Amino acid sequence: MGLLGIDIGGTSIKAGIVSREGRILAKSRIPTAREAGVAGVLEGIKKLVEDLRERAGPGGESPAVAGVGVPGSVEAEQGLVRLAPNLGWQNVALREQLQELLKLPVTVDNDAHMAALGEMWQGAGREYGDLLMITLGTGIGSALILGGAVHRGAFGYGAEMGHVKVLPDGPPCRCGGRGCLETLASATAMVRMAERELAAGCPSLLSGRRPLEARDIVEGAARGDEVSRKVLNTAARYLGTALANAALVAGPAVIIIGGGVAQAGDIVLEPVRRAFAEALGAWQVKAVPVVAAQLGNDAGFIGAAYAAQNLLGG
Amino acid sequence: MGLLGIDIGGTSIKAGIVSREGRILAKSRIPTAREAGVAGVLEGIKKLVEDLRERAGPGGESPAVAGVGVPGSVEAEQGLVRLAPNLGWQNVALREQLQELLKLPVTVDNDAHMAALGEMWQGAGREYGDLLMITLGTGIGSALILGGAVHRGAFGYGAEMGHVKVLPDGPPCRCGGRGCLETLASATAMVRMAERELAAGCPSLLSGRRPLEARDIVEGAARGDEVSRKVLNTAARYLGTALANAALVAGPAVIIIGGGVAQAGDIVLEPVRRAFAEALGAWQVKAVPVVAAQLGNDAGFIGAAYAAQNLLGG
Repeated sequence: MGLLGIDIGGTSIKAGIVSREGRILAKSRIPTAREAGVAGVLEGIKKLVEDLRERAGPGGESPAVAGVGVPGSVEAEQGLVRLAPNLGWQNVALREQLQELLKLPVTVDNDAHMAALGEMWQGAGREYGDLLMITLGTGIGSALILGGAVHRGAFGYGAEMGHVKVLPDGPPCRCGGRGCLETLASATAMVRMAERELAAGCPSLLSGRRPLEARDIVEGAARGDEVSRKVLNTAARYLGTALANAALVAGPAVIIIGGGVAQAGDIVLEPVRRAFAEALGAWQVKAVPVVAAQLGNDAGFIGAAYAAQNLLGG
Repeated sequence: MGLLGIDIGGTSIKAGIVSREGRILAKSRIPTAREAGVAGVLEGIKKLVEDLRERAGPGGESPAVAGVGVPGSVEAEQGLVRLAPNLGWQNVALREQLQELLKLPVTVDNDAHMAALGEMWQGAGREYGDLLMITLGTGIGSALILGGAVHRGAFGYGAEMGHVKVLPDGPPCRCGGRGCLETLASATAMVRMAERELAAGCPSLLSGRRPLEARDIVEGAARGDEVSRKVLNTAARYLGTALANAALVAGPAVIIIGGGVAQAGDIVLEPVRRAFAEALGAWQVKAVPVVAAQLGNDAGFIGAAYAAQNLLGG
């Protein structure tokens, strides 16, 4: 019996059929037809699932349940997408509509939660039931998993590490706050910081690179570029401190860093680990590993498939 | 069947016999004979328990189990006090020694954990299973309770909110870190801040008060003293921000502030609530009440009695 996992992103929808043992039986992706609204996304999912069923082939297992991750705040119990700015959605009863479309029981959750479940099941979190995952991208996604389940907290939407305040009176955030981690350590924040250095006339390998991307900064740092290193270390310092603060409150057994930037490995992770250890100081009586995510873009649909298992009887 | 609760503090040991319904049947306290080491404290506890049994009287229930709170890091499963600086203790097998002394099953935990369990059982946290409690004193004690139980986290000692970093490169802390919440919002930190203002020649009702105590600052603020207000608001701002950050990670349903300063009520709590709401901004989709503890000095032994219930069969 297969599990259908779907990861709706702002630019593409990824989906896969996953076995109950966590093996990917088939996977596929299509661009997100955002401009066509909810109907356009549903249409896309329909095609994607047909494609997947074909790819899984005659020997492939037909999925019995589906999980869906959405980039936004989700009322998981109601299957309701409260707000997904990157899709332009507000109050979409996604579970209901998808159950109708797919003729399957469906569970819906935030995409960062799904990715964390995926890493726990098949990736960097395999040995752990308590983990904190951070995804560095345009913004910062996060999920706290305790005892193998997403910890939703009083607000119901789980950890929002991107909006913890790490610098009093720091830069303004799109959420309306100031000094949010997202404004200081996301991929976007790194690019902004680098552009400021370049505009100030600092000599750098990055000069003239347009559009400048976070991966250029990582590459620059690897090649010894001073501006790149400064930007990476500054972002890492804020991130490491925020992670240490989270560890002093919620005590995850492992911290997983996802997103394109983190895939570069130690050049990004080492300064984060240093800042984390420094901020914890004497309080770090046991090692809490800070590691890179392992599943890349597959984490979201694998985790969604994992979440869908709860819909199976027995 | 009564429950014996004991709260070992740096200056006094408080104890009580509590019914399974949470009613205090008898309570007592004695000064902590710190200079006589562990033996001195055990001697004191013995007298205290004899006194309590007398007070509970012939109709009183004899305790069947005991819980003990200690100001320090405790390996609760082993009943081992790893480090209790205010008692001068290191690696004390307290459970073993107390079981020998009291002829009762004993459970040992950190005093802030016990106080939080007390408030959950009989105080400000009665309606909640998920709560964060902060105690403002010489340092800052804290406990995160999730699903009715102390959340210990990967390090094993639970929440250490006093040492989350809230000000990059802030004042040095006795833990070796910089900018820890404890250095900016504890009762001690408030006094230090006020003393700095006074030394700078700011006119204030507090001038000449020696030794200056946190309660003087609260009283000064109530009487409109500018220095007092400034100190209280500054500390509240750091505390409110740290609480908002914790709420964005661990999502407690209620936040309880304990310690002498918090007993003053709204004059202290209002600025904390304002800073908390400001730091959460749009993320506060549901109200998380920030309230004063209700049990005062009794919270510790009441919570210890509550924890002892786990030792009862059935």
